[in-house]
Amino acid sequence: MTVRRVHSRRVRIIGIGSGHPDQVTHEAAAALRGVAFVIAADKAGPDQPRDRLLEAREEIARRYGDVPVIKVSDPERDRDDVVDYRGAVRDWHEARVAAYEAVLVAHEGDAAFLVWGDPAFYDSTIRIVEGIQRRGRVSFEYDVIPGISSVQVLAARHRIVLHEVGQPILITTGRRLSEAVDQGHDNIVVMLDGNLACVELEGEWQIWWGANLGTADERLVSGRLADVRDELRVQRDTAKGTSGWVMDTYLLRRPVPQVVAASGDND
Amino acid sequence: MTVRRVHSRRVRIIGIGSGHPDQVTHEAAAALRGVAFVIAADKAGPDQPRDRLLEAREEIARRYGDVPVIKVSDPERDRDDVVDYRGAVRDWHEARVAAYEAVLVAHEGDAAFLVWGDPAFYDSTIRIVEGIQRRGRVSFEYDVIPGISSVQVLAARHRIVLHEVGQPILITTGRRLSEAVDQGHDNIVVMLDGNLACVELEGEWQIWWGANLGTADERLVSGRLADVRDELRVQRDTAKGTSGWVMDTYLLRRPVPQVVAASGDND
Repeated sequence: MTVRRVHSRRVRIIGIGSGHPDQVTHEAAAALRGVAFVIAADKAGPDQPRDRLLEAREEIARRYGDVPVIKVSDPERDRDDVVDYRGAVRDWHEARVAAYEAVLVAHEGDAAFLVWGDPAFYDSTIRIVEGIQRRGRVSFEYDVIPGISSVQVLAARHRIVLHEVGQPILITTGRRLSEAVDQGHDNIVVMLDGNLACVELEGEWQIWWGANLGTADERLVSGRLADVRDELRVQRDTAKGTSGWVMDTYLLRRPVPQVVAASGDND
Repeated sequence: MTVRRVHSRRVRIIGIGSGHPDQVTHEAAAALRGVAFVIAADKAGPDQPRDRLLEAREEIARRYGDVPVIKVSDPERDRDDVVDYRGAVRDWHEARVAAYEAVLVAHEGDAAFLVWGDPAFYDSTIRIVEGIQRRGRVSFEYDVIPGISSVQVLAARHRIVLHEVGQPILITTGRRLSEAVDQGHDNIVVMLDGNLACVELEGEWQIWWGANLGTADERLVSGRLADVRDELRVQRDTAKGTSGWVMDTYLLRRPVPQVVAASGDND
């Protein structure tokens, strides 16, 4: 009897960095070259004639292996349902799972999702793929390939370490920023913020801010928060106007008395 | 009159990821190809015949552009000076600054430092380069190129998002873990830990642990902390025995009542 080992179908969740094709790792490029197709959300619609995040994914798929991109119209999300907010989000999540599952049913071969930044930070792709697997209609294995997150691009552009020597870093969302401040954190990275929550902060803070990091329209601002509030608003609006979208990331730090270099660093 | 624009000398601080050459980004590889030489610490000595972290850097320098590596013996650090711990660290830091400066004085052209993981997390290279610049003996510009950090490899290997939906993440060191727990954090990433501080923790925790992530000797453990304490010790010792060094990174999370998928995710 001959036992033939069958290669399982693979779904690969690939972090692509902040969108610039050069930020892709060699590991991610090799994974991308090996798949039959990429699945990507298409958010273009009446309100938004072009989906530029999709276009950036298409550029990366073209550059690394000329891999076809299968576009999936993003399900409508009922943002007005304030009564059952969680229910609305859950329905939207389920609709996405079903839409991506349909692509895996209709097309053969290994597939990839290209995730902006890193799949480990504030991204739902891993949960969506788990959701498809749980439904059991298509059989596959999946893996995750890390990518450069916007936090790292922020730090690199400002040429900073994200913490004082040996100190902790809190990473949170704009929605939870005030909670983090109330808890006494003095070194806070904010990754998802629709409304520049930082401009409402009181007290003495330093800020290192970036929008659309890694793209041609990247914007950087740093300084005393009290001095740069208006500049932040202007730069954020300009980035949105130029790119058609804006994603900003920032580090807030309370100034502490200067201490001499101490331990706690790697290397 | 002819004005000739002189290209300033550049020092490039390049994140190389967790050591596997495939984890290098295309941006980092291009930067590396463009320099005249790499400066790297050499920690080999009587107690340690080979410096394998140096060897990994040499492999990356060879693979991406066959760039010469100038080795600098790492200054002795007086780890016994418990009376003036900060003073001892400062002296050691200054000795490194002077040693690297000497290389920049002796050799012409752009230079690179290859940083394990990402220069923004618990690494001293940016501070060292700032230190050289402050002394003013050599003139240069410097920039930073992000790399995949071990936290991201940890998350990718375990196929997890580093936080529950929309929740914050605290990144800290082994030395400060108990402080973070006392403050009530229930989602903690530990990046620098010489002694598996987590095994001393009480209470109910889940752990996702990894050692020498991204290398051939990578080790992974996950589960209830209470169930895997011994396994962690064994795997850490084995990694150290096999690789000659060990670096571990882990996520600790208090189990919380399951909630339905909520918002706060990107994309």
